[in-house]
Amino acid sequence: MALAETASDFNNSPISWNTIVEAHQRVRPRIHRTPVLTSESLNGLAGALLFFKCENLQKTGSFKIRGATNAILSLSEEEARRGVVTHSSGNHAAAVACAARWRGIEAFIVMPKNAPAVKCRAVEHYGGKITFCEPNVKARAGTAAKIQAETGAVMVHPYDDDRIIAGQATAAKELLEEVPDLHAVLAPVSGGGLLSGTCLGAKGTRGNVRVYGCEPERADDAYRSLTSGKLQALETSDTIADGLRASLAPRTFAILKKHVDGILLVSEEEIVATMRLVWERMKIVIEPSSAVAVAPLLRSSGRTEIGMGGVSQPKIGIILSGGNVELKV
Amino acid sequence: MALAETASDFNNSPISWNTIVEAHQRVRPRIHRTPVLTSESLNGLAGALLFFKCENLQKTGSFKIRGATNAILSLSEEEARRGVVTHSSGNHAAAVACAARWRGIEAFIVMPKNAPAVKCRAVEHYGGKITFCEPNVKARAGTAAKIQAETGAVMVHPYDDDRIIAGQATAAKELLEEVPDLHAVLAPVSGGGLLSGTCLGAKGTRGNVRVYGCEPERADDAYRSLTSGKLQALETSDTIADGLRASLAPRTFAILKKHVDGILLVSEEEIVATMRLVWERMKIVIEPSSAVAVAPLLRSSGRTEIGMGGVSQPKIGIILSGGNVELKV
Repeated sequence: MALAETASDFNNSPISWNTIVEAHQRVRPRIHRTPVLTSESLNGLAGALLFFKCENLQKTGSFKIRGATNAILSLSEEEARRGVVTHSSGNHAAAVACAARWRGIEAFIVMPKNAPAVKCRAVEHYGGKITFCEPNVKARAGTAAKIQAETGAVMVHPYDDDRIIAGQATAAKELLEEVPDLHAVLAPVSGGGLLSGTCLGAKGTRGNVRVYGCEPERADDAYRSLTSGKLQALETSDTIADGLRASLAPRTFAILKKHVDGILLVSEEEIVATMRLVWERMKIVIEPSSAVAVAPLLRSSGRTEIGMGGVSQPKIGIILSGGNVELKV
Repeated sequence: MALAETASDFNNSPISWNTIVEAHQRVRPRIHRTPVLTSESLNGLAGALLFFKCENLQKTGSFKIRGATNAILSLSEEEARRGVVTHSSGNHAAAVACAARWRGIEAFIVMPKNAPAVKCRAVEHYGGKITFCEPNVKARAGTAAKIQAETGAVMVHPYDDDRIIAGQATAAKELLEEVPDLHAVLAPVSGGGLLSGTCLGAKGTRGNVRVYGCEPERADDAYRSLTSGKLQALETSDTIADGLRASLAPRTFAILKKHVDGILLVSEEEIVATMRLVWERMKIVIEPSSAVAVAPLLRSSGRTEIGMGGVSQPKIGIILSGGNVELKV
């Protein structure tokens, strides 16, 4: 499965390899090249060599700053003057607020009222103007559209946007540059911006790497969409993985249909246990959404589920998407 | 204040620079060269450029593996056959158990019964044999002496041992190698092994760097000892910083009297707030003892307390001693 080199290869998604390279050049001076960490302890549990791309250590605490920075630095002067608006459960919100501050423009942020306090504080820290809404997909989009109509601000959608997807692709691109011989890469999936970008960034760097999306059982729209071949909506979800409560868009669905090798589902119990295990063994803070992409590798069927049942010590990359979580002691 | 080059320079403590270099050569193949992380957010709060030596990301989750490995790899064959014994609130315990396993010998570990469960699990994970005792200095030493008499095992004291101090010195040595122009280095102090080693390792690399110890108000024996010039005991302590409940030994007191530039005290409230701040802003897990060495820099008097009141943006190194803490979500 080789990467599309021309726009016509993608339905509604003209993201060529060159687009990703340009996005990387655009965001690189602003963001961290996050470290790739390993853990002997987790290798032992997985029966594999795991390479963790630590976007939890990224600026604003998640990969979202990659896409937001690429989108906002791509705006024309006329667009930028109008400011930007978006809706997000938190990490994209903070990223847009931060990137808007870098560009010196206003950011209007719609957040569901059950977003974690730590994520709201981050948006405020970067000077974003928050409007809260009901915690469902329809309310988020509706509230953002209303603000857009009132202010003229440019919509920076959290995933239904080629500039966002190209930005998110740079995390997998960096991971494959650092560990070129990975057998597979796992990333969480919600709206599909990170997973689409991971497919393009990983397979663009190394054509035959497998890419899997990981999703909570309680928010399994990507699994159902890919299995049925028809885009399935997720009206609402109460998974602990607060970053994964959105649904695929036609744009991300089209990329995943073509490029993703499968979707792995995990239970709430697996998410919590895995998050605690990574905190305890690796001493890094990851949020529940990040744990979703680690959990499948810790069950006995894990290697088989990603087609590595017969491979001794396969090399697996994992995108740790973010670290914005409330911790108690 | 230059580093002693010969044994006679130290009262009871023949730790020359060459001893530290040899310790580093001995432990380097076994341990991580831990990263030095920075945080724009914490720099802003401190009005300084902070360089965090992340021993929380070290093997066994703390700097203690440096000293334990140096001591245990230094044993003669005859000594090693008898096994090792120690007492520790946790991190030295896990480190001795791990280093003993590397050498293939037995480790008997005395732990206070209020040691955190996460630290007990670590000792068991490395195959150490735990004996619990009352949580005070006398019970710890007494129980270890009894086991030593019964088994013939060699005592690997957590800090009253030149091999341990020389091993701990390698953390500051690495930090100064990576950031040579630091104005000051801060480390937590309990029995004084890390702080003594930090004085020797830092000032041995760069003679005019200042070194400060940081201590909970509730376990202020080092502060009282250095202030009065007489070794003061700490019978018991209930500080949340479970790694800092021991007292200086004559050996570490002698080194600190000669080399340390001061002791800074912090409240329990400062420890907890700082620990949470580091988790939230840096996305790394630190235990309360680590937070003790960050907290003084976050108060308005912080720079003045370390003699940097008139320096704009001084460069400060901090030894984050460990990351073994129970986290909840």
